[in-house]
Amino acid sequence: MQLQKTMTSLDQLCINTLRFLAVDAVEQAKSGHPGMPLGAAPMTYTVWNRFLRHNPKNPLWFNRDRFILSAGHGSALLYAMLHMTGYDLSLDEIKRFRQLGSKTPGHPEYGHAPGVEATTGPLGQGFAMGVGMAVAERFLAAHFNRPGFSIVDHCAYAIVSDGDLMEGVSSEAASLAGTLGLGKLIYLYDDNDISIEGNTDCAFTEDVKGRFAAYNWQVISVADGNDIEGIASAISAAKAEETRPSLIIVKTHIGYGSPKQDTAAAHGEPLGAEAAEETKKNLGWPLSPLFYIPDEALNHFRQAAEQGKKWEADWNTLFENYKQAHPELALQFEQAIHGRLPETLEKALPHFKPEDGAIATRSASGKIMNSIAGIMPHFMGGSADLAPSTMTYLNGCGDFSSQNPKGRNLHFGVREHAMGGIVNGISLHRGVIPYGSTFLIFSDYMRPAIRLAALMQTHSIFIFTHDSIGLGEDGPTHQPVEQLMSLRLIPGFTLLRPADANETLAAWKIALKRRRPVALALTRQKLPILDSKKYPIDEGVPKGGYILADSGQADIILIATGSELHLILSAREGLLKQGIKVRVVSMPSWELFNEQTEEYRNSVLSPNIPKLAVEAGSPLGWKGYVGDKGDVIGLNRFGASAPGNTVLETLGLSVENVVKRAMKLLRQA
Amino acid sequence: MQLQKTMTSLDQLCINTLRFLAVDAVEQAKSGHPGMPLGAAPMTYTVWNRFLRHNPKNPLWFNRDRFILSAGHGSALLYAMLHMTGYDLSLDEIKRFRQLGSKTPGHPEYGHAPGVEATTGPLGQGFAMGVGMAVAERFLAAHFNRPGFSIVDHCAYAIVSDGDLMEGVSSEAASLAGTLGLGKLIYLYDDNDISIEGNTDCAFTEDVKGRFAAYNWQVISVADGNDIEGIASAISAAKAEETRPSLIIVKTHIGYGSPKQDTAAAHGEPLGAEAAEETKKNLGWPLSPLFYIPDEALNHFRQAAEQGKKWEADWNTLFENYKQAHPELALQFEQAIHGRLPETLEKALPHFKPEDGAIATRSASGKIMNSIAGIMPHFMGGSADLAPSTMTYLNGCGDFSSQNPKGRNLHFGVREHAMGGIVNGISLHRGVIPYGSTFLIFSDYMRPAIRLAALMQTHSIFIFTHDSIGLGEDGPTHQPVEQLMSLRLIPGFTLLRPADANETLAAWKIALKRRRPVALALTRQKLPILDSKKYPIDEGVPKGGYILADSGQADIILIATGSELHLILSAREGLLKQGIKVRVVSMPSWELFNEQTEEYRNSVLSPNIPKLAVEAGSPLGWKGYVGDKGDVIGLNRFGASAPGNTVLETLGLSVENVVKRAMKLLRQA
Repeated sequence: MQLQKTMTSLDQLCINTLRFLAVDAVEQAKSGHPGMPLGAAPMTYTVWNRFLRHNPKNPLWFNRDRFILSAGHGSALLYAMLHMTGYDLSLDEIKRFRQLGSKTPGHPEYGHAPGVEATTGPLGQGFAMGVGMAVAERFLAAHFNRPGFSIVDHCAYAIVSDGDLMEGVSSEAASLAGTLGLGKLIYLYDDNDISIEGNTDCAFTEDVKGRFAAYNWQVISVADGNDIEGIASAISAAKAEETRPSLIIVKTHIGYGSPKQDTAAAHGEPLGAEAAEETKKNLGWPLSPLFYIPDEALNHFRQAAEQGKKWEADWNTLFENYKQAHPELALQFEQAIHGRLPETLEKALPHFKPEDGAIATRSASGKIMNSIAGIMPHFMGGSADLAPSTMTYLNGCGDFSSQNPKGRNLHFGVREHAMGGIVNGISLHRGVIPYGSTFLIFSDYMRPAIRLAALMQTHSIFIFTHDSIGLGEDGPTHQPVEQLMSLRLIPGFTLLRPADANETLAAWKIALKRRRPVALALTRQKLPILDSKKYPIDEGVPKGGYILADSGQADIILIATGSELHLILSAREGLLKQGIKVRVVSMPSWELFNEQTEEYRNSVLSPNIPKLAVEAGSPLGWKGYVGDKGDVIGLNRFGASAPGNTVLETLGLSVENVVKRAMKLLRQA
Repeated sequence: MQLQKTMTSLDQLCINTLRFLAVDAVEQAKSGHPGMPLGAAPMTYTVWNRFLRHNPKNPLWFNRDRFILSAGHGSALLYAMLHMTGYDLSLDEIKRFRQLGSKTPGHPEYGHAPGVEATTGPLGQGFAMGVGMAVAERFLAAHFNRPGFSIVDHCAYAIVSDGDLMEGVSSEAASLAGTLGLGKLIYLYDDNDISIEGNTDCAFTEDVKGRFAAYNWQVISVADGNDIEGIASAISAAKAEETRPSLIIVKTHIGYGSPKQDTAAAHGEPLGAEAAEETKKNLGWPLSPLFYIPDEALNHFRQAAEQGKKWEADWNTLFENYKQAHPELALQFEQAIHGRLPETLEKALPHFKPEDGAIATRSASGKIMNSIAGIMPHFMGGSADLAPSTMTYLNGCGDFSSQNPKGRNLHFGVREHAMGGIVNGISLHRGVIPYGSTFLIFSDYMRPAIRLAALMQTHSIFIFTHDSIGLGEDGPTHQPVEQLMSLRLIPGFTLLRPADANETLAAWKIALKRRRPVALALTRQKLPILDSKKYPIDEGVPKGGYILADSGQADIILIATGSELHLILSAREGLLKQGIKVRVVSMPSWELFNEQTEEYRNSVLSPNIPKLAVEAGSPLGWKGYVGDKGDVIGLNRFGASAPGNTVLETLGLSVENVVKRAMKLLRQA
């Protein structure tokens, strides 16, 4: 247990302060992960002490370096660092680690402790979000920096673990980061050879260095995780490399200094009082008091606050001068970083009239997106290799690449999961409103990232096209059935499934204004355009559900979302001929509808009128709207490969079946 | 457009027959993917013509080589091959490509055309399933082969695409396959530089060769995709390499020979009549008839049927001799490949009594699994680096590795998605009943694989522990909320959430006997054991929902799953004291319950009695059981980081709240 020779005693003191704040927090909580903080404290300290440009007193200073603890289980280490460097995170909060209502939950949560840049813990997510942050930085730098004015100039650092590197989402993100040549991405790999099931040899013998070199990353090895000079040299080399991301492989010891060092036992549970004391003895730390913070360490760490104030002040001066020199750009920049929508938005958007002819909602969305792009330079995104099908390409806006960082079309490749994480990362960075698109079925591939968007409440916009069995021939592997409902299950997430071009327009306005994670589910097939003069679409869609057409005292209420709205509109014609009064309710968003007053909801779905809901997806949950006496036409099975209309009709999504089931319902009523 | 010199005209004829059967099928369907078949026909032909050991007349011959078209969009090529080599797939079926009820859906579907080994299309899945097949082969070979009797000895081939290699699930599976040294895995990479958004340069510039070498794969390059001798040499080299999987990078031209060659336009839509004709002219193919099959080609291909018969006959002889030499092993082998359960199963399983004290269902499951392992040598699986937490380690059964292929514990690493695909692949291979485990929250990471299990109806068993906010301190990133319900949404999938050790036992029996995909949701926290003499658990659980306790003419029905059953049992005590008669319904599986007769279901959830359902998850869908007048205690929000009981109580999962809500319901009734 020899101390590193090149380390000053002050460095050592600081590192051990972090280590034992973390150890004591875990002990106090009787829960947590001491092993990672003990092993990774030196590298984390080196990043923060020597490189990280941030301002603890203003965690949102725009030009700060970003730091992500992708190995989120090491949260106690991050909290210790935030407290020590002067963020608004008291020692009491550290003592309340993992307790109800504390700012120090088990894994770092965005929006709890200041300075936590992203919610992490589900492995690989932090890795991908960091790539998103580096994309945003590069994009904004390309657009806004001018000679003498590097107003956007910062790095994205992360600490990543064995687990992070095993997860596929990291592979996807790493390959794309290499393709894009994101030089300001600097990841430190806490290479401790241990995962929960034991030595990583049992499952992870790959040559990480070779793999990342193959992704076009600079890879640097540091043989001793306590060698802060070696780590510092590596980071300097990473900063010097501008055309490739860097992975610094730091050989560490999980549970360093403890009797459980280098074993899986050090990972996910408290050391226990005895072992904690032994660790302190091994590393020359006083056994009491707990949560001990030496003054010299505190003073040293707290210089970060002073330094941070200065960095921000310098940047503020730079930005003031930039404003003088480039007033229009400066205005645009402020608009971008505050996520403001242009006042001309409404005017810029297209209008759709029935006489224009039928159009798929994916196509309408494509036109709308291109209009938005025209007046919002900070709107950018892409597709997981399906842009020609999802219609999400921004024409004339160029492709984002190492050669063209101003490009606004990001080719994610066939990497839905990384796309989700990168979109979240761009949104967290701020300055860009990002979108990502794929087929609705493949939302399954990126579900963990969608969930994190909901948990963090990022302004991530997801465009999911080919939203039903109506996509036809590609068959059940490509036909969503359960996906609409499973997205509705995610707390804090908003799904919009518009029924035509005009509802799509309304949905896009919501997606932009809501500033929370939203998905649009759009059709492959063409749909007639509803007349926005005849139908109250503009007022209705924001309420999530609304009466599209009524008939005085309705005998029955037909409810639908998306393409199925046209089925119930046609069914209404048929039923009206038989003297049956039909109300048609369009319900593009359950979440928005549920936010309305009970009075409003009851005015739409009047309790005493029989109801039939129609949606080409799992019916589970619709009973909550149609009630015991209501009925649902949905899908309790997978689709089939055949032309879209054939599939829809065969599986009961036809006007005829709607009429039949409506009549049956009325007979039972 | 020069033909490869080393190719005989017969080879050329055969390859072009495949190409144009595919092109014509796509033209006829007016839908599909002609580009891949045109480019990849030579490599596919080479595998099948020179290497693949299979028997078209018995597609299920156990010792066949497996072939997976991971690039499932090239389905027309596979169908052409199956028809030509004599599988029971008529030319008419090829003409009905992508039509309702045909055996030739848009993407290959297991169980439709004979010879389709796996459902593919969602990219990366085939890659991972092939790894599962190679695991199964190696495991069975290690257990059953004896000197002179290589009764298990076959390869897993796949054609993989750019998209497959971009997907994270492939990275996970590839890294694990390299660690395991699966020498019989031979993948051919259709390296055509084109993806849907254009040249792969836009998103995929990584050094694939270097990456796979880093995973410990042998990587061989073939510069010309029409060079079948080169491809054959590469495959021979792959077969010769026994300690590493092989990736053969074959440079091809998407849409080879067509006017759209080397463009994304050749990928996903018919060439069009004109371009199809031009392609035929370019490759010297007659313009009519459509679906032209030259006799020489047919004769050549159909030798596969003769050869296959012979291979199988030889193997049958070998196996007969094996039976003589090793009768007991042979019996075990037959039991394994037919997935039979031992008659001693019931006897071997543990019993749980209340006096044993509280036990988490994950721990009970671990004991049960170890009992199963004791009498079922073909039961194997593992965890995505969480075995100590999911309690799924099979004690004394060894770890599966290149050194110990008999090992029955597979360390998947932190790779949930690949785990799902590999478990599916093992199940498809047959001979092994596989399981995979992780925390319930991380079922999100493997959702596309779970969906495929449901679509294919494989016997994949998934163990998902830490099944509610009751897991406590790890917080919302690790606490499932929407996962129970989102698994219930998947058609054909069965979720079981047992309430105690005895229900867990019953659930495991179902998991083994059902021979369809099943997940068990299990607790982290301890739960009392229910007395199986007092409660009808053994008969009840297979029905999905049953009356656990009743009180004559009940005033109210309380329904719960899993750990919440104990809340309603305790609440019942409180309510009984107030003179309220309470029926307690345990509902471990919605799917099983929904399979029962209406009469049975109504006898359990009697329509006219008020109902309150309690589940620590999303309430969406419960209305279908409790009705308009019923109530649900569930979670419409994310959890929180705090000790488990604190979280449960704070969010309303308490006996007190159940009593309160029950009383409210009774007042309203």
